[in-house]
Amino acid sequence: MTHTRGDLFDPVFGADELAATLSDSAWVSALLSVEAALTRAASTVGLVSPEHAMAVTAVTSRLAEPGGVDIADLGRRSSAGGNPVIPLVRTLRSECASEGVPAETVHVGATSQDVMDTALMLMARSAGRIVIDDLRAAADAAADLARDHRETPMIARTLGQQALPTTFGALAASWFTGLDAAAVSLERTVAALPVQFGGAAGTLAAVHPHGLAIADALADELGLARQVVPWHTVRIPTATLAAALGVAAGAVSKPATDITLLASTEFGEVAEDTPGDSSAMPHKQNPVAAITARAAARRVPGLVSTALSSMDHESARAAGAWHAEWETVTELLLLSGGAAHRLSESVGGLQVDADAMSRNLALTGGLILAERVTAALSEYTESARDIVTAAAASSVPLDQAPAITQHLPPSTLRDLLDPSHYLGHAVDLVDRALAARPTGGHR
Amino acid sequence: MTHTRGDLFDPVFGADELAATLSDSAWVSALLSVEAALTRAASTVGLVSPEHAMAVTAVTSRLAEPGGVDIADLGRRSSAGGNPVIPLVRTLRSECASEGVPAETVHVGATSQDVMDTALMLMARSAGRIVIDDLRAAADAAADLARDHRETPMIARTLGQQALPTTFGALAASWFTGLDAAAVSLERTVAALPVQFGGAAGTLAAVHPHGLAIADALADELGLARQVVPWHTVRIPTATLAAALGVAAGAVSKPATDITLLASTEFGEVAEDTPGDSSAMPHKQNPVAAITARAAARRVPGLVSTALSSMDHESARAAGAWHAEWETVTELLLLSGGAAHRLSESVGGLQVDADAMSRNLALTGGLILAERVTAALSEYTESARDIVTAAAASSVPLDQAPAITQHLPPSTLRDLLDPSHYLGHAVDLVDRALAARPTGGHR
Amino acid sequence: MTHTRGDLFDPVFGADELAATLSDSAWVSALLSVEAALTRAASTVGLVSPEHAMAVTAVTSRLAEPGGVDIADLGRRSSAGGNPVIPLVRTLRSECASEGVPAETVHVGATSQDVMDTALMLMARSAGRIVIDDLRAAADAAADLARDHRETPMIARTLGQQALPTTFGALAASWFTGLDAAAVSLERTVAALPVQFGGAAGTLAAVHPHGLAIADALADELGLARQVVPWHTVRIPTATLAAALGVAAGAVSKPATDITLLASTEFGEVAEDTPGDSSAMPHKQNPVAAITARAAARRVPGLVSTALSSMDHESARAAGAWHAEWETVTELLLLSGGAAHRLSESVGGLQVDADAMSRNLALTGGLILAERVTAALSEYTESARDIVTAAAASSVPLDQAPAITQHLPPSTLRDLLDPSHYLGHAVDLVDRALAARPTGGHR
Amino acid sequence: MTHTRGDLFDPVFGADELAATLSDSAWVSALLSVEAALTRAASTVGLVSPEHAMAVTAVTSRLAEPGGVDIADLGRRSSAGGNPVIPLVRTLRSECASEGVPAETVHVGATSQDVMDTALMLMARSAGRIVIDDLRAAADAAADLARDHRETPMIARTLGQQALPTTFGALAASWFTGLDAAAVSLERTVAALPVQFGGAAGTLAAVHPHGLAIADALADELGLARQVVPWHTVRIPTATLAAALGVAAGAVSKPATDITLLASTEFGEVAEDTPGDSSAMPHKQNPVAAITARAAARRVPGLVSTALSSMDHESARAAGAWHAEWETVTELLLLSGGAAHRLSESVGGLQVDADAMSRNLALTGGLILAERVTAALSEYTESARDIVTAAAASSVPLDQAPAITQHLPPSTLRDLLDPSHYLGHAVDLVDRALAARPTGGHR
Repeated sequence: MTHTRGDLFDPVFGADELAATLSDSAWVSALLSVEAALTRAASTVGLVSPEHAMAVTAVTSRLAEPGGVDIADLGRRSSAGGNPVIPLVRTLRSECASEGVPAETVHVGATSQDVMDTALMLMARSAGRIVIDDLRAAADAAADLARDHRETPMIARTLGQQALPTTFGALAASWFTGLDAAAVSLERTVAALPVQFGGAAGTLAAVHPHGLAIADALADELGLARQVVPWHTVRIPTATLAAALGVAAGAVSKPATDITLLASTEFGEVAEDTPGDSSAMPHKQNPVAAITARAAARRVPGLVSTALSSMDHESARAAGAWHAEWETVTELLLLSGGAAHRLSESVGGLQVDADAMSRNLALTGGLILAERVTAALSEYTESARDIVTAAAASSVPLDQAPAITQHLPPSTLRDLLDPSHYLGHAVDLVDRALAARPTGGHR
Repeated sequence: MTHTRGDLFDPVFGADELAATLSDSAWVSALLSVEAALTRAASTVGLVSPEHAMAVTAVTSRLAEPGGVDIADLGRRSSAGGNPVIPLVRTLRSECASEGVPAETVHVGATSQDVMDTALMLMARSAGRIVIDDLRAAADAAADLARDHRETPMIARTLGQQALPTTFGALAASWFTGLDAAAVSLERTVAALPVQFGGAAGTLAAVHPHGLAIADALADELGLARQVVPWHTVRIPTATLAAALGVAAGAVSKPATDITLLASTEFGEVAEDTPGDSSAMPHKQNPVAAITARAAARRVPGLVSTALSSMDHESARAAGAWHAEWETVTELLLLSGGAAHRLSESVGGLQVDADAMSRNLALTGGLILAERVTAALSEYTESARDIVTAAAASSVPLDQAPAITQHLPPSTLRDLLDPSHYLGHAVDLVDRALAARPTGGHR
Repeated sequence: MTHTRGDLFDPVFGADELAATLSDSAWVSALLSVEAALTRAASTVGLVSPEHAMAVTAVTSRLAEPGGVDIADLGRRSSAGGNPVIPLVRTLRSECASEGVPAETVHVGATSQDVMDTALMLMARSAGRIVIDDLRAAADAAADLARDHRETPMIARTLGQQALPTTFGALAASWFTGLDAAAVSLERTVAALPVQFGGAAGTLAAVHPHGLAIADALADELGLARQVVPWHTVRIPTATLAAALGVAAGAVSKPATDITLLASTEFGEVAEDTPGDSSAMPHKQNPVAAITARAAARRVPGLVSTALSSMDHESARAAGAWHAEWETVTELLLLSGGAAHRLSESVGGLQVDADAMSRNLALTGGLILAERVTAALSEYTESARDIVTAAAASSVPLDQAPAITQHLPPSTLRDLLDPSHYLGHAVDLVDRALAARPTGGHR
Repeated sequence: MTHTRGDLFDPVFGADELAATLSDSAWVSALLSVEAALTRAASTVGLVSPEHAMAVTAVTSRLAEPGGVDIADLGRRSSAGGNPVIPLVRTLRSECASEGVPAETVHVGATSQDVMDTALMLMARSAGRIVIDDLRAAADAAADLARDHRETPMIARTLGQQALPTTFGALAASWFTGLDAAAVSLERTVAALPVQFGGAAGTLAAVHPHGLAIADALADELGLARQVVPWHTVRIPTATLAAALGVAAGAVSKPATDITLLASTEFGEVAEDTPGDSSAMPHKQNPVAAITARAAARRVPGLVSTALSSMDHESARAAGAWHAEWETVTELLLLSGGAAHRLSESVGGLQVDADAMSRNLALTGGLILAERVTAALSEYTESARDIVTAAAASSVPLDQAPAITQHLPPSTLRDLLDPSHYLGHAVDLVDRALAARPTGGHR
């Protein structure tokens, strides 16, 4: 009986596609890819023959296939040394030996951390691209809503209270501007993910004088950014990635929270197209995609703090701070990306009920436009504010309060109290936000 | 190819035993146990016949066996409703139906959250007991060291600097007092983990007037604490558990950090009995158990903040805050417990090098006892402090500084500079700490 | 011009009363109290004369008066040694000297950490009591609401959607049960806050053989719990306090979030009695107390993670982890307590609008009781569920759907659709929760 | 008696200069600056006369002077509405009225959040520049060390164990590369801090059609970046700032941790030039600047998680998430900057003891070069590894083990065991890191 995790909850939190890039198998595969690329890189400087490099590559490919490595066994063998590279290299060397490829062609000049860090960068690149795509998909869907509803009046709520009219497009613009910014920042971070190659002490002594050349060749083999110097204890890449994912999850949480609220029975302004149902309660239309996006996003900030707390790598390799990163980074990718994915489902299928928005705009009997009525009334009386405040307090609709109607004719009041006539720059702002979208966002 | 996680890193972080209680399978098994117990509880008030209760129990047992439920499929079916109870109940009812057991005997009066929360409590109890055992094993091992080394002199270091002599026993006492306190607190928390049973709106309306009786019967069936009232949105149990695990991980981090430091080449005062080796560097004796204990412990505080941040459950069921708890709580158990386990391995096999401690005590040429020499010298001269400070500054050993030896005879100086003669209450404190150990700790 | 903080935001976050116990002045005062008590404790074993102990106490009282110590200057002088005890002891000794009291009567056998830790415990006790009082005040107010509204029907909302009827009393019960539990746990923690006395290396060497006696006398002087052994590096007291405050803030966040939601214009079910107004928008009734309670509570979990992360105190005094605690603990007290205070204001003056609750119960045209109608209809037709689901989908009120009314007479339907007839155990649960309140909670 | 905070601990944590930009006074001053600039911006579109704009500016300048506003009173008046802008605008309007300047010239078209957010951006810019300067000062100091010690041999320690030789310059390079990267990222973030101007509902309705023009004019007046659209609920600027500060604190924690470790008595490789002393223990040289840098840095990740957790701003103004940001952001600046400042003091005055490094390199009797000896020995015997491992295990220095000396002559062994002959690319990497420093870093 297996004791693994992931199958049960990853789909709930939108992470099933991502899980394939962040699983135990993905780790083993990435570690093997790094070892193979390292041998090829070593062959570019003549430390390994091209034939041996090809042979090592072939062996790693075979081991990376399903069942190629017994992962549970590898995990158990990893315990003694504290990371899976040590036993994996043993396995790889032994497999190579059985094909006549000498042990020293594998793991040339490397330390375990070189392979772990580089593998993590590979996984972060693959997973990061999915996260970026999901952020963009959500942003694009929000941009479509903003475009379609740039003039659809709705009430703007501040501190939970109805404030003034706005448009649903303006709200949707607040969604995609955040998502776009997060995607741009994450894309920059992912593009800069560097190779790691420093050897046992970060000096590349074992492959001197070829160290710098091999490091660059390794980066090129894998399509990662080249390192300036090894960053065994300078955790800018992992920390920057964690931070960008934290911002991304936050950018997801805003629309997800809005949708959950707007979909509530009392608001009724939006609905997901495939809400979670309840056999016992046929009226319930749970916005499950937004809810689970919120849930996934909520789990991210704590992980970011773990990643940042673990930047204090002492000396030339940290005794714990380094090990604490591995699953922290993969969970950050899984959860930020899952949140973005769930949000893209939610926004992508969002049903907008302009009638409900209209009904809600009418809920206060015009009080949301009191400011405007006060301004108009001020031209006739000095006690405009008091009159309006009194009407508000007495729950008399503003267009029926005698103290108001004695000054302002019905047609004027009708105009003053029409929410669609007091939208300010809402439409301009939607257009401006759409025009400013990053190019990468228009796919 | 599976995309699961756990096999690769759980052993590294000491969590392989725990993983069995916190895996996807463990979830499914716990959910099924709750459903079976609920049906039996409903039969105690006559809502279900004893025969049907037995039949449902039998079906759940079958489904809980390996392969009984296709977990990946269940995960995918969980996505729509946002939790696995909905599809699992469908499966269970369908299995029951095929044996002639009516659907309404399953999930009587319950809401998904009743089953999820109660299952999580069951898992927390099982896993929590393992965590407690590991905390105690580590504490017991530290207590043994404290007893054996109550008089073994070592230098106490403050702010990284050698300060005054103490004993290794006193340091080990600081280890077990923290671990014991954490174990006691966690034990109290685990013993109080309550059943959850409130129905769709927390009113138990669907089983009125039997709601309270069923809730208590369910608790008794499962051996959980009875609830006073449902706690769907009052997350004291999960938050208290998270907090206790956070304190436990912190209690682990202290000795793990000490061991990592004391095992460094320059200190050399302790070594693990099965350190991680390095084929390239035969002199390296990495204290891998302590290192990975530190790493696991470092990942806990961020998760605690996630759990506490998710106590803001609005209304009668939270749209996200609840869902955010599930994997947060299981990871907290996994990592705190893994840290404790790794620490128990480290402390349990710790080699203490009293000679190295002795050597390090001699490192400053007596300066660590300057305070004591100053006090003795004060009886002869008013410039005692200046004389000692000057000797310290000039790096002359205190027993060779003429300004000192002119007043204090060699035998007196020898006594004054003998670290074992200035241990203060170190031994008393070890004895006091040992005597104060919680009974539960002496097994 | 002063560069201090606190005056501007403490009142907003409910912390003005607490601020007096956690300010710079409060620190200096607590540090001086510890020094005075230590001298008196030393006199109990004869190391200081009673006269000198009285004199030192008098000097510390004078220094603890406003202006007695120039705090900005003390802060600057604290920078070199890394904590304020070093320069404060210098000041205190110098003041004593000018009264003929010898330097060695001050700070007898102590290390800076003894004084800092003990002072922090004193402050935590004072502030903690205020936090407990505020938690209880909020709980008591919620209990009053629960009692008054045990039968007031309202809709229970799950995942943001209207679910089934409950009572407002049941919701208010969820508020006080969490607050009571948090208060009980915090009270236990505060009562256990211990003295710290270990001397430079935790061995009490400088006052041997009187160390243990002085430690106990010091605890008794200050009314703190006695230590078993010094806990310089065993941070159970600070961590447990942080954890209890974290749970307390979480317990506050739930009702604060509910109130913010229920006070929204669309819900309109509660209002604070002194809501924040807006001159421009007279209809706005911002529930500012609940909002700022939420805000303060949100800032707590991150600080808890900081406190837990800083339990890894190496050796005999930590180089950083200790220093990181001071302001973390005081801010935790300030913010948890402030949140509780603001919540007690909100709940204490909460206006409950039973009519609005009634209106909201009617919003779905009976769908919230579909489950009940289905059950009743099942006695007449096998397609009960389909009939009800179809009615729900077509937005026809359930008491007007022909397929339903053909089976169920109007009076039956009226009863079935009356929310107050389907409250389940709501009232029982309120009574049970009230009866289970901790004695400390009934003041 | 005042109940403020800051004076006592800010200097300890390196934040006294920063405190002036983040104090209560700084808030009031920034809020007033925004109001003045807003009036001037409104005058650019003709909504306010130039004379009135000048008058308002003059009044704000007067109020911003020490004592101009009673801050404790302002704080108390802020409690009702939940932020200080409401009462401050009242005060400002009243002061203006007394000079004949009409109320409507103040706070034109603005909502409280416009003023709070813009003021926070101003403060973040001022404080952020100090943080950047301190990061760079620390980086520059580390770069100087790296240059001076590019060839100074020291042992590289991995997982706490001596590994292979490197140079102190290579370690120092790991310090400045992290600090430089953090400074660059923070600089980009600070330069992008935008103005906030959206009005009550984010539509700028009250100043339509001048809204966009005023927003841009306001940005230009204050030297902030222009907004694309208001970001009342899109918290990218605050979150990105928090994230950059989190990375910066992490970049500080690495060298601070190294220095604390290397300054320990047993290592003895570095010392601060003004270490904290201990009158009782003259030999102690506490690296207080590094210790307090570590402490400040440790408090940052939890605050980052708070900032990220508070990105879920619902609707058009968040009920709590917004308020939670204010002190979180100022504390992030204070602590990250304080950490950088303390580190710059530590590194700037660091005493490097090359002799101690040499001694420590000799500690293992050549075992740190076992790898190299093995390689050389391999040319003579197939059991090279076994021979070296056996020598290591028996604690015989490698140049005295007969099994080795029988193959390798003394001169060869001397060369093989000379740490300075096995530095790999250490020097190259120092040069490469220095050459890659950002231009901004060379001041």
